[in-house]
Amino acid sequence: MKETNCVYPENLSIALLHYPVLNKRGDIVSSALTNLDLHDIARTARTYGVNCFYVVIPIREQKVLAEKIIEHWTSGYGGTYNESRREAIKLIRIEETIEDVLAHIHRTRGCYPKTVVTTARTEKGKIGYDKFQRLLQDGSSWVLLFGTGWGLSREFIDSADYRLEPIIGNDDYNHLSVRCASAIILDRVLSKQR
Amino acid sequence: MKETNCVYPENLSIALLHYPVLNKRGDIVSSALTNLDLHDIARTARTYGVNCFYVVIPIREQKVLAEKIIEHWTSGYGGTYNESRREAIKLIRIEETIEDVLAHIHRTRGCYPKTVVTTARTEKGKIGYDKFQRLLQDGSSWVLLFGTGWGLSREFIDSADYRLEPIIGNDDYNHLSVRCASAIILDRVLSKQR
Repeated sequence: MKETNCVYPENLSIALLHYPVLNKRGDIVSSALTNLDLHDIARTARTYGVNCFYVVIPIREQKVLAEKIIEHWTSGYGGTYNESRREAIKLIRIEETIEDVLAHIHRTRGCYPKTVVTTARTEKGKIGYDKFQRLLQDGSSWVLLFGTGWGLSREFIDSADYRLEPIIGNDDYNHLSVRCASAIILDRVLSKQR
Repeated sequence: MKETNCVYPENLSIALLHYPVLNKRGDIVSSALTNLDLHDIARTARTYGVNCFYVVIPIREQKVLAEKIIEHWTSGYGGTYNESRREAIKLIRIEETIEDVLAHIHRTRGCYPKTVVTTARTEKGKIGYDKFQRLLQDGSSWVLLFGTGWGLSREFIDSADYRLEPIIGNDDYNHLSVRCASAIILDRVLSKQR
């Protein structure tokens, strides 16, 4: 992954984690890559001016696949076929672990970021969207973390600096896709249109 | 499609149109079905309590494919494997044309709905999200229309009762996926959490 694939105008990055996440039975697993996660979340990230979209994939074959997809849409045929897609996809940076994400932000921005996890579950000590907007003004670097599969592991959620309030619809049904949940959250936090 | 697949508690439905939409060159075409459109948008529709999620597909083979997907996740194996997915997917109703959507709403709710198109382009006479929220209180039935491909045709946009303000990010980049755009719009219009 070329260093130039990331731009650094803002202090908020996002990361999509394929580990440590839960499967349907509640076991901690490494989930499989979903092509449209890369496309959709990159397009949302580009729309709202997010600094960098990290994709955390520990499994080597899956990492190679993700890099192929990115290459196709940036320097390959896809990049000339669809320029707006290229502009979004080039925000993606693949890392093997969350520690690699934090180290990359430290290296490029001079400080470790504060971590905020998103989850569909109601969490103790969660912060609301208004609070998160205010926190983003503090001059720190921030990384907002999204899980794939059946969500981030309990231990991972507890280890983050903050837990963001879940999206609540019109009853207790909360099974949004990670693509849609991340779009709604970035709109709530970053949109100037409201 | 069974009539019981739709529930009618609210006065807002949504529709995803595969015709008449534009291709990359600006020709009016019938676009191909995307499996994740059905899943993602149904999950968002269920989250926000939307009445019915219509999928408009004029091409017979594509309609059959959509019905197979729906059957798998409602009465087939998928429905027992993932109950929350079943609950979302059963909100989907396939129709061949927009006229069939309007006729179905007329038949089930006793009146033709007012139509609101969504588009990434800035439109003359567009309505904002606040205005749309107020309009929804008027007791009419409403249907919010989303296009696939490169967006709904000019003529179709002009023929709707209202045009909704596009989602604006942090600059002029507006290439959200229809999955993410519909999630953001439903959250802006229907969320009680803001």
